[in-house]
Amino acid sequence: MLPESIKQLAARLSNLPGIGPRQAIRIAIYISQKESSFIDDLAGSLQEISNLKNCSDCFLPHANQSSRCRICSDPKRTTDLIAIVEKITDLLSIEQSQAYSGRYLVLGDLKKDGELTPEQEKRIGQLITQLTSLPNSQAEEIIIALSPTNHTQISADKLEQRLRGKAKKITRLGRGLPTGADIEFSDDETLKNSLKNRS
Amino acid sequence: MLPESIKQLAARLSNLPGIGPRQAIRIAIYISQKESSFIDDLAGSLQEISNLKNCSDCFLPHANQSSRCRICSDPKRTTDLIAIVEKITDLLSIEQSQAYSGRYLVLGDLKKDGELTPEQEKRIGQLITQLTSLPNSQAEEIIIALSPTNHTQISADKLEQRLRGKAKKITRLGRGLPTGADIEFSDDETLKNSLKNRS
Repeated sequence: MLPESIKQLAARLSNLPGIGPRQAIRIAIYISQKESSFIDDLAGSLQEISNLKNCSDCFLPHANQSSRCRICSDPKRTTDLIAIVEKITDLLSIEQSQAYSGRYLVLGDLKKDGELTPEQEKRIGQLITQLTSLPNSQAEEIIIALSPTNHTQISADKLEQRLRGKAKKITRLGRGLPTGADIEFSDDETLKNSLKNRS
Repeated sequence: MLPESIKQLAARLSNLPGIGPRQAIRIAIYISQKESSFIDDLAGSLQEISNLKNCSDCFLPHANQSSRCRICSDPKRTTDLIAIVEKITDLLSIEQSQAYSGRYLVLGDLKKDGELTPEQEKRIGQLITQLTSLPNSQAEEIIIALSPTNHTQISADKLEQRLRGKAKKITRLGRGLPTGADIEFSDDETLKNSLKNRS
């Protein structure tokens, strides 16, 4: 009973992360009941996204004239400290912590089997080339800053192998109890790490 | 660190039903990483929605040349049986049941205080005017087909008052145990209704 255009919009919305087919239909119907300025604004915002480019160094999307993002073109940033993150949102969270002053490489979503995609291989290759301009062709430190889940461990191991010799230190994010955690309800793996990394 | 255009798109997405601010950011970032054809398709689908109109009789959105939707212009539909529903998705669910052959009036989201909005008053008024073309200026039956929640009961009572005399029968959807329900875990209200409406 719904017009094709609502079904088509719903089908396209259901390709977006976290939107299921039922919610997509609800959203498409909701939009069909809005005034045309609402729809124009949303479509306009979408089109503006097309004008963004990814940073040539870290792959964060940006609207700068130059090819590099604000972080990569900031002279106050440590250039020989690199954090490799999976997602742009991971980068944002680390920035928000204000505990990091180096630069980044965004890999994009990792595959569950731990293999790197050709695009991810390309990004790593480009990072390695960039590192050759540093003293001793080495970074001071590369932090493999992946969320500690089972499948990212394989990717992290692969990354460490690929980057061996390209940095004085290759590290991973510290493991242990998160702030506010209850020991009683913490899993064995977390407790094991919290004991190993006690300080 | 995110470009303004991503933040703006996220802000607009978070106005859509069921999308929170964090998910909106995730979706906007996701879109920023897609090829431009993906963005164009989505924006195009949105713009097509602007071409829809709501049915002049029941307010279901449609793409017909005429002012009425497929249901309202279907001669096989009973014209003197009207179901008043809150949401377009309610109409779709009733259609899917294939247990209803009458027509509809879509009210749009009801307010929690049970009051009808001016737009809803207008739709009811228009229905009443349409009913004057029927024999005795009356429908055979009007079904107040609202989901049985606390706040819709007030709206249903108000609708019944407004429509008194405009139909031979004014009914509501049957109440009782849903298929697959477990008596042990059913609430008192449902059980009371299932006893009252036993058959």
